Amino acid sequence: MKTVFSELHALQQVDTEFYRGKWVDAFEIPRRAELVLDAVRRADLGPVIEPEHFDLAPVLAVHDPAFVRFLETIWDDWAKEVGEIPAYPNIWPPRRTRMIPTVRPGAELGRYAVDMSSPILKGTWQAARAAVDCALTGASLIEAGESAAFALCRPPGHHAGRDYFGGYCFLNNAAIAAQWFRDAGADRVAVLDVDYHHGNGTQDIFYDRGDVLTVSIHADPVQDYPYYIGFADETGAGEGLGANLNLPLPWGSDFVSWGSAMDQALSRIRAFAPDRLVVSLGVDAFEGDPISRFRLQGADFTEIGRRIGRLGLPTLFVLEGGYAVAAIGDNVVNVLQGFQAA
Amino acid sequence: MKTVFSELHALQQVDTEFYRGKWVDAFEIPRRAELVLDAVRRADLGPVIEPEHFDLAPVLAVHDPAFVRFLETIWDDWAKEVGEIPAYPNIWPPRRTRMIPTVRPGAELGRYAVDMSSPILKGTWQAARAAVDCALTGASLIEAGESAAFALCRPPGHHAGRDYFGGYCFLNNAAIAAQWFRDAGADRVAVLDVDYHHGNGTQDIFYDRGDVLTVSIHADPVQDYPYYIGFADETGAGEGLGANLNLPLPWGSDFVSWGSAMDQALSRIRAFAPDRLVVSLGVDAFEGDPISRFRLQGADFTEIGRRIGRLGLPTLFVLEGGYAVAAIGDNVVNVLQGFQAA
Repeated sequence: MKTVFSELHALQQVDTEFYRGKWVDAFEIPRRAELVLDAVRRADLGPVIEPEHFDLAPVLAVHDPAFVRFLETIWDDWAKEVGEIPAYPNIWPPRRTRMIPTVRPGAELGRYAVDMSSPILKGTWQAARAAVDCALTGASLIEAGESAAFALCRPPGHHAGRDYFGGYCFLNNAAIAAQWFRDAGADRVAVLDVDYHHGNGTQDIFYDRGDVLTVSIHADPVQDYPYYIGFADETGAGEGLGANLNLPLPWGSDFVSWGSAMDQALSRIRAFAPDRLVVSLGVDAFEGDPISRFRLQGADFTEIGRRIGRLGLPTLFVLEGGYAVAAIGDNVVNVLQGFQAA
Repeated sequence: MKTVFSELHALQQVDTEFYRGKWVDAFEIPRRAELVLDAVRRADLGPVIEPEHFDLAPVLAVHDPAFVRFLETIWDDWAKEVGEIPAYPNIWPPRRTRMIPTVRPGAELGRYAVDMSSPILKGTWQAARAAVDCALTGASLIEAGESAAFALCRPPGHHAGRDYFGGYCFLNNAAIAAQWFRDAGADRVAVLDVDYHHGNGTQDIFYDRGDVLTVSIHADPVQDYPYYIGFADETGAGEGLGANLNLPLPWGSDFVSWGSAMDQALSRIRAFAPDRLVVSLGVDAFEGDPISRFRLQGADFTEIGRRIGRLGLPTLFVLEGGYAVAAIGDNVVNVLQGFQAA
């Protein structure tokens, strides 16, 4: 399996994040990607290649154009008004207000941001675009006949919605790849999100679509990020009714309950009979993860890969979260090797 | 004119606020209220009295019960999970999500907060309740026959909506008083907001009501806080259609344009023929204000008071913003003395 990786990910780098009332050491750091890359190489998983560069069309196919334009231009506007410091929102729209553009970068940030974990930096746009390129290059490998590919994306993407960013995510790499598969001719695409956190952005993007099935196994949003979305009764809308499956699990869940949820996820995917599968591959369900509360073990990730492999689908793996830095590489590789051994 | 004041305001006190990407000295500080009180005493405006204590019914008459309960209980929940540090949100609901309660204080904060300027502290609820008591005591003085009263409220209130807090505001003192007048028998009540910033909370609360006219003269939300609301085309909804008047003005406006907007405001109020008037009295349209960009002079505030006085209405003044600390007391007293001299 080829791995697609860009060094540009390192442009998104902060030392701290604002978390529960104070600044703490950042969880989403460049070292994450480096450790995954090291593990991929150590395991001899296959060639590591640079991404091709794609234009904005696939991004605009899932994200709101004004939002994309915002991401592209906000740093310059912010730096001009505020200075070259990380751009964090300090205000956002109350309920019952409209989306009217302002002339103030801080207010524009608030229109599109949904948390304090995802500052816009000088290199954010470039890093986010490179992550999209990794995902799309992986997708094009599959389109060219490979059975699987691994897009080692950073920043991650699955929390980015049609017109909002947050949770360390700016552009939704997995959703962009899923849509690209559709536009390349796949009739049905499934996205399976195994990250500890609900794939809220992906759900948001495809919520009213019947051609892209979105399935997520994650911490109950009553207890954990992203909190306000990811409930079991969110099953899609309009033509998408029935094409969104949320499998929230309580804190403390181990692979007994997680694996059982996964079987539900897989049988839904089988019933949907997609032409392509995109896996939002977060490994923060791992017991040692510093911001998560599931109890999966290293070997469980091998089993996850194996079960995904048994679907027999052309599969694009897209890196999402996972913060137990020392173990992240092994857990990711376990999934990929499990998949290959299926 | 009597002034109603409670020392409990000082329970809401922080040294810094998060503003445009960094922590800066707080603008909304206890010293504001102290300087206004000093100026009131120096000008011999009339007796300064303590508020009576009111129960929660008048608060619940304008605010969402779950929001009020949140404000009352969040500090204890936060302190238990996070510790006794100021409670700031670090996440808030994306668009297209529901208002489902969580078990996490940080997530609950995000459901109700709209900015980073208004931390919940140990004494926030008590301070906010005391400010409401000041407003309601002032209202009851008028109900008992006084022609005017000054509620020296802090924290301010006009940015607090039905179910959100922000802009240094937690409970909407002016809106609560306006509704209290209604419940005490007034058929029609007008709220005139002369603060530099749009009275978005007050607009939100009465937006679909025809019995309470809300009028605000403020900085164009395209340019300044609260940004997402306060536009001229927001004229009310349903039975409230036509009962909301926004008069946004560009940066740099002096009393030529401000006074002209005020004349529009006053003629709308005259046409509405209210039984009671509530004035949301911010004095941050002052040229020297550190976070505002209008250019009103000290004498202009006297003229504002005089024009309000000429309406001949029983009038409750409720303190809102104003951050040019040295001048805030004089500017407030100018309005009140102008009113009395009308």
